[in-house]
Amino acid sequence: MLHWAKLQSITQDTARLEQALERWTAVLGVDHTIVERASLAAVETATFSTTQFVPAILRPANTSQTQECLRIANRFRIPVYPISSGKNWGYGSSVPVTTSNVLLDLGRMNQIVDFSEELAYVTVEPGVTQGQLHEFLQARKSGLWLDATGAGPDCSLIGNVMERGFGHTPYGDHFAQVCGFEVVLPTGDMAQTGFARFPNSQTAAVYKWGVGPTLDGLFSQSNLGIVTRMTLWLMPAPPYFQAFFFQCGEDSQLAPLIEALRPLRLNGALRSTSHIANDYKVLAGLQQYPWQETGGSVPLRADVMLKLRRRLKFGAWNASGGLYGTRGQVAETRRIMRQALNGKAERLQFLDDRMLELASRFAKPYQLLTGWDLRRTLELVRPVYGLLKGIPTAHPMASCYWRKKTPPPSPMNPDRDGCGLLWCAPVAPMQGNHVTRMVHLAREVLLEYGFEPGISLTLITERSVCCVVSISYDRNVPGQDERAMACYKHLLGVLGEHGYYSYRLGIQAMNEWGGDDGYGGLLRTIKNAVDPNGVLAPGRYQAT
Amino acid sequence: MLHWAKLQSITQDTARLEQALERWTAVLGVDHTIVERASLAAVETATFSTTQFVPAILRPANTSQTQECLRIANRFRIPVYPISSGKNWGYGSSVPVTTSNVLLDLGRMNQIVDFSEELAYVTVEPGVTQGQLHEFLQARKSGLWLDATGAGPDCSLIGNVMERGFGHTPYGDHFAQVCGFEVVLPTGDMAQTGFARFPNSQTAAVYKWGVGPTLDGLFSQSNLGIVTRMTLWLMPAPPYFQAFFFQCGEDSQLAPLIEALRPLRLNGALRSTSHIANDYKVLAGLQQYPWQETGGSVPLRADVMLKLRRRLKFGAWNASGGLYGTRGQVAETRRIMRQALNGKAERLQFLDDRMLELASRFAKPYQLLTGWDLRRTLELVRPVYGLLKGIPTAHPMASCYWRKKTPPPSPMNPDRDGCGLLWCAPVAPMQGNHVTRMVHLAREVLLEYGFEPGISLTLITERSVCCVVSISYDRNVPGQDERAMACYKHLLGVLGEHGYYSYRLGIQAMNEWGGDDGYGGLLRTIKNAVDPNGVLAPGRYQAT
Repeated sequence: MLHWAKLQSITQDTARLEQALERWTAVLGVDHTIVERASLAAVETATFSTTQFVPAILRPANTSQTQECLRIANRFRIPVYPISSGKNWGYGSSVPVTTSNVLLDLGRMNQIVDFSEELAYVTVEPGVTQGQLHEFLQARKSGLWLDATGAGPDCSLIGNVMERGFGHTPYGDHFAQVCGFEVVLPTGDMAQTGFARFPNSQTAAVYKWGVGPTLDGLFSQSNLGIVTRMTLWLMPAPPYFQAFFFQCGEDSQLAPLIEALRPLRLNGALRSTSHIANDYKVLAGLQQYPWQETGGSVPLRADVMLKLRRRLKFGAWNASGGLYGTRGQVAETRRIMRQALNGKAERLQFLDDRMLELASRFAKPYQLLTGWDLRRTLELVRPVYGLLKGIPTAHPMASCYWRKKTPPPSPMNPDRDGCGLLWCAPVAPMQGNHVTRMVHLAREVLLEYGFEPGISLTLITERSVCCVVSISYDRNVPGQDERAMACYKHLLGVLGEHGYYSYRLGIQAMNEWGGDDGYGGLLRTIKNAVDPNGVLAPGRYQAT
Repeated sequence: MLHWAKLQSITQDTARLEQALERWTAVLGVDHTIVERASLAAVETATFSTTQFVPAILRPANTSQTQECLRIANRFRIPVYPISSGKNWGYGSSVPVTTSNVLLDLGRMNQIVDFSEELAYVTVEPGVTQGQLHEFLQARKSGLWLDATGAGPDCSLIGNVMERGFGHTPYGDHFAQVCGFEVVLPTGDMAQTGFARFPNSQTAAVYKWGVGPTLDGLFSQSNLGIVTRMTLWLMPAPPYFQAFFFQCGEDSQLAPLIEALRPLRLNGALRSTSHIANDYKVLAGLQQYPWQETGGSVPLRADVMLKLRRRLKFGAWNASGGLYGTRGQVAETRRIMRQALNGKAERLQFLDDRMLELASRFAKPYQLLTGWDLRRTLELVRPVYGLLKGIPTAHPMASCYWRKKTPPPSPMNPDRDGCGLLWCAPVAPMQGNHVTRMVHLAREVLLEYGFEPGISLTLITERSVCCVVSISYDRNVPGQDERAMACYKHLLGVLGEHGYYSYRLGIQAMNEWGGDDGYGGLLRTIKNAVDPNGVLAPGRYQAT
């Protein structure tokens, strides 16, 4: 009897889906209503184990088609799950949180809708990528820089903002640098936020809060609406730019280093979200796992790591960041940095465009004279240097192939290639004791599970440090998927117990922290009101 | 029949109110459930004409009493209207948007709950005032500055943040510098935002967005909840500070000036929200209306203004702002400013603590030598200089008495003293043509109605300018209340037609722009869900 009821329900579900697909096809055309298994299998695949089934992909061309898609979803009660470029690496790529969601791929909506050189902003649709915006700015010889993440040129700008990702310049805290959303609500209705709600407004692109309640935050890390348009603020290229690099030989230097950097972030001397990577993180950026030195055994032994650090000249902690301003301003910040880091860090170096060009030109004779392969160093420095100037690069993606035994292909595709990657991103106050404790907790858990604890610290705001812990593995090695997931959940739990909550969650972790507090209750009230049929991205950032 | 029904309904309303008051008194005690007419008349009075009737004032001592007050409000369907200090000058003071709201005065909740010198934040309740926080910081010789508005030391910090007010330092955009709200929802439930929702979180006070949807914006300029606790970020006092002052003799210099300042705000050379006031605004800060020179006629004639400008040495436009940093950084910014303002502004002057002290000491001999009363100048400069360093002052409040014929009393109370003041605060892109057009529209409307167009411009963000237009009058002159209100509505309409919408609205204007757009619909959906009985501040920032 139970079986019969279940079968009946499945049959009804299938019938509803088929009816909905008929309507969706009528709106989008058959080319943009994808049910072909190979395409579906691709979007069902992330950098870790998932079981979600995706019955179809819808590719609306514009806001009005997106609205229509949602109205049909409501009519037939089919959940839909929006992606912009689907490159949410380490957090679930394009895979929905729950099974049987139809994927709403917004990639075709890739127009740069508005742009102002004077007021330094650009208005984009969800399909616009970092690379596309960079090219757009280059093509018109703009004096503006975007803020890019290391996730590659093909990543959606809006997708990253909605996850509240961060980059490397003074505009690194992405959600702080946007305004004027156009949002398709779960019902298919449309709303605009801030001053964009007034059709003739002069200030939709320049002032964030608008008048009345500010609703932007509702739509980030949520399932309350689909942002189909957004203004991003851009940074005027400074008259002068220098990158800085320094390192600490010992792990024990981290706490005093954080103490030394906090005043510089707080007083605005350091305007950008500087990064500090540990040895594992740097190594994974330089090469794949040293299978030869280790005779194929994992995890990486401490003595091998030490040898590699000496050979490749990196420290226990390795920092990089940018100085932006006039020559005078940059010189003054350099002085302040030198003073603050005196005795706390080593190899503090500053690099500008001219030095970089000179180094490239003289790399060959330099090697002949000193034996040091400067070109290799430059190859490694260039992508980081570029990111500090908002130039997107696919380079950091190679580290997804850390535990693979064949080199990264071109183009790279971590989902397809069986790269294992789980990112956990806890935040701590910018204080030496907190940051050290957070790092040590993460390191212990990863080593316990047999993974190299690749860790980067970002001075994301003036008062907080975001730690990105990479659980990096080879999905083709049996048992690793399960072990990595167990490690992630253990890690999230331990960090939560100590009060270091993540700024962002993967699709596998939306339920980890419960929602039985006042915030969770309020969110459920709002969700039920704006999405009465529960069709938009069920479970996304919402504990059930 | 209709009369009878109405009478019956009034009787029922009265009975419900009495029952509710009984319950409220049981919770708060008779001393904090105020029904005495004189007290009620005071909170029913703003700086413009209002007709709202306030039947009672409730003064909860803490969050749990606030929750209980709201539960009772729901049970008896009595609207309640929260105020922190009720000093929302020019926008309605403590007067509710609609009539017959019981006032929920949060002034007793005045604890500074948490403070960190290292991480530069303070966590406060709604009753904590600017003056109180300033004294708190002084008492512990803190190296941190608050950002103060010109509305006087007795103003609530949270009250101003919730209205998204602004001040004078790099932390001038108040809503951008807060996090971790504790909110009593309309039902009496409680929720916390950001990482504050996790009881053991280490990052509640240092990271704004939290994880999942960011709900802070919902509670600003709204009627969706009462913020009973909030963390404010404070600014570390810079090693060196200089104020700058300059002026433009001609109105036509405004557009080029804005063009010159925009790059400085965009590239971070000017980190603070600099202010530019027109001649009317400056004059109202210096003295009351010149009844003698004008023989009692209003509005102020152009030739009299010119004479006063020459005598008192101010320009058509008068700017002030602060430079914050090391001596080296400030020197570099000074150089950049000199270069940018060359030929565009006059009398560019820089002032620091030492110069101010010297000037005070030598004011007397200086006057003997030159005849110039330096002490008077210092008296005027000191409050502005202080505000740039986050020192609250009641000085700007004297301008509320502009059209009065007796001098401001001590202490000042614009509501009580019949000062007429309506503030309109449109925003424009930081471009010369936009700012000029906005200013000219405002000036024309005010002159048409016979008021002096006192205007200040604040470079509130890197891309936008907020204009505060003061309609300043004497409420004791018959007909002026009506004329001022007509002027305000006309002004708001004209500015809206041109796309310059206000960042903030007075209680009399919540319905001016309609709410029949997607944003308005979404807001109504949320309001109905979180406040099913409609008891919290009906009409506040919500068109009906």
